[in-house]
Amino acid sequence: MKYYSGVDLGGTNTKIGLCNEEGKILHSSSIKTDSIHGVEDTLERIWLEIQKQLTEEKLTKEDLSGIGIGIPGPVKNQSIVGFFANFPWEKNMNLKEKMETLTGIRTLVDNDVNVIAQGEAIFGAAKGHKSSITVALGTGIGGGIFVDGRLISGMTGAGGEIGHMKLVPDGKLCGCGQKGCFEAYASATGMIREALSRLYVNKLNALYEKFQGNYETLEAKDIFEAAAAGDVFSQEIVDYEAEYLAMGIGNLLNIINPEVVVLGGGIALAKEQILEPMKQKIRKYALEITLENLEIKTGVLGNEAGILGAAALFMLS
Amino acid sequence: MKYYSGVDLGGTNTKIGLCNEEGKILHSSSIKTDSIHGVEDTLERIWLEIQKQLTEEKLTKEDLSGIGIGIPGPVKNQSIVGFFANFPWEKNMNLKEKMETLTGIRTLVDNDVNVIAQGEAIFGAAKGHKSSITVALGTGIGGGIFVDGRLISGMTGAGGEIGHMKLVPDGKLCGCGQKGCFEAYASATGMIREALSRLYVNKLNALYEKFQGNYETLEAKDIFEAAAAGDVFSQEIVDYEAEYLAMGIGNLLNIINPEVVVLGGGIALAKEQILEPMKQKIRKYALEITLENLEIKTGVLGNEAGILGAAALFMLS
Repeated sequence: MKYYSGVDLGGTNTKIGLCNEEGKILHSSSIKTDSIHGVEDTLERIWLEIQKQLTEEKLTKEDLSGIGIGIPGPVKNQSIVGFFANFPWEKNMNLKEKMETLTGIRTLVDNDVNVIAQGEAIFGAAKGHKSSITVALGTGIGGGIFVDGRLISGMTGAGGEIGHMKLVPDGKLCGCGQKGCFEAYASATGMIREALSRLYVNKLNALYEKFQGNYETLEAKDIFEAAAAGDVFSQEIVDYEAEYLAMGIGNLLNIINPEVVVLGGGIALAKEQILEPMKQKIRKYALEITLENLEIKTGVLGNEAGILGAAALFMLS
Repeated sequence: MKYYSGVDLGGTNTKIGLCNEEGKILHSSSIKTDSIHGVEDTLERIWLEIQKQLTEEKLTKEDLSGIGIGIPGPVKNQSIVGFFANFPWEKNMNLKEKMETLTGIRTLVDNDVNVIAQGEAIFGAAKGHKSSITVALGTGIGGGIFVDGRLISGMTGAGGEIGHMKLVPDGKLCGCGQKGCFEAYASATGMIREALSRLYVNKLNALYEKFQGNYETLEAKDIFEAAAAGDVFSQEIVDYEAEYLAMGIGNLLNIINPEVVVLGGGIALAKEQILEPMKQKIRKYALEITLENLEIKTGVLGNEAGILGAAALFMLS
């Protein structure tokens, strides 16, 4: 049996898990990332934690076949991090090399959403399939494209940046500074922005009743709840969301024609409300041939996706 | 030295070329496809022509390492043709198997635009690069996506159907029956449709002067020529074309992040008029990181792309 460490390097916390080649997590724990003390400090503490886990599982360094690391930012050649989103660490850093020098263990690094896509492809919802696209629908929209056993990471690590595919010429301003991005329409943020815009001119609805004009804490969840309870205003926002989701995913089907689409993140939790209407609407956007035998599923790895995916970087499907 | 036959199976004519592994065409010729007599008849005549070429080059069947075939339609696993566009041949035909049974030579089949993409990646404008997207801008828009030495052909052969990526929600009707497709805006057809629509309400322009309201023979070339001669009406149509081209290609950059984009087809001939403005406009649509070191080039294989690409199906980059 081979063993791997999966590391999910987050802005605040870093999750570390010791996995076997079958995708079983033997041991997992979390440490503070504390990126402010510099990359060397964080990597040393990660390595200490990995060694602790090995000892507790009665394994040694020699039993460890690889360390996989998922990070928030673009990664080139599973080695060089273009930049760390929200970390005060240098640009174009060869994180693979740093970790290998420190540990003597083969290391692979990839973008956090790509890592989730790899995890779903190897151990999760797309297991056993040759190609899949994992779409993370949260505050933003991220994606990971898996074809013939490999992630499409791109020349500069921006492969799968599907949230910035433009769906509307000169459309809504996106957080990235460009306009009309998929993410500006179909993320949780996009849904809230659309609700706020409509609420400005409509007060005869359940959301107004609930928040009384103070929308600072309004979340996508509130909209789904109001829609489920019969509020037409909220139902129309969910419908708007499903339409753009269908358009964005339909585009990906025409370009990649994968076997499986895996949907994750907060929005995907609203299965019946958003995924079923989206599946109907996608026929407007995807070529019929791309829908033959296509499976659209929700992710199954949940909170463990980051750890399992990082470990899965060493495995082919 | 290894030798391959490249076959470009077209609606009217089929081009056949004998190539060596360095991408040199030793011999090429063309026969009528005459698809009406059935697939067996056409394949037999292709095989006769291949054998004739071998004899003329003093080679034998044993010298031939493979036969590559490009066809107009989606192809699954480089074997099964979903359907032949404009051919009265059965659906879901295993053309690879048919040809191998007939010839005893290993055969690979792929979509004609994918074949061109493979040719440009192995022998042409993207030679030596790990990833490239070839965009064929003609009557329609086709694409071939080449990553890590392989085409993304897709589960049902629809990989690279970039012409049907939607750029405008409920936009212009496309020939495919859906709305808002890249092809409905940025193909030669899209450009002519936009011109016709504008000509309906504007007669103070060089195109009206030239055609006097009878636009049946209007081609994209006429619009480029009038624009180059200073006609503002035509310049605005070219600008419109460049904008959608930038949007479509920008989307592909965000999704695939390739090293090279290769542009082919009639529209790409208008290099200075369309490609230079497009390169400026693409900054509105593509994430900055995808433009670092990106090369945007025109195809170099021209009429030989179909033959060389079909032969190149046997080669990795």
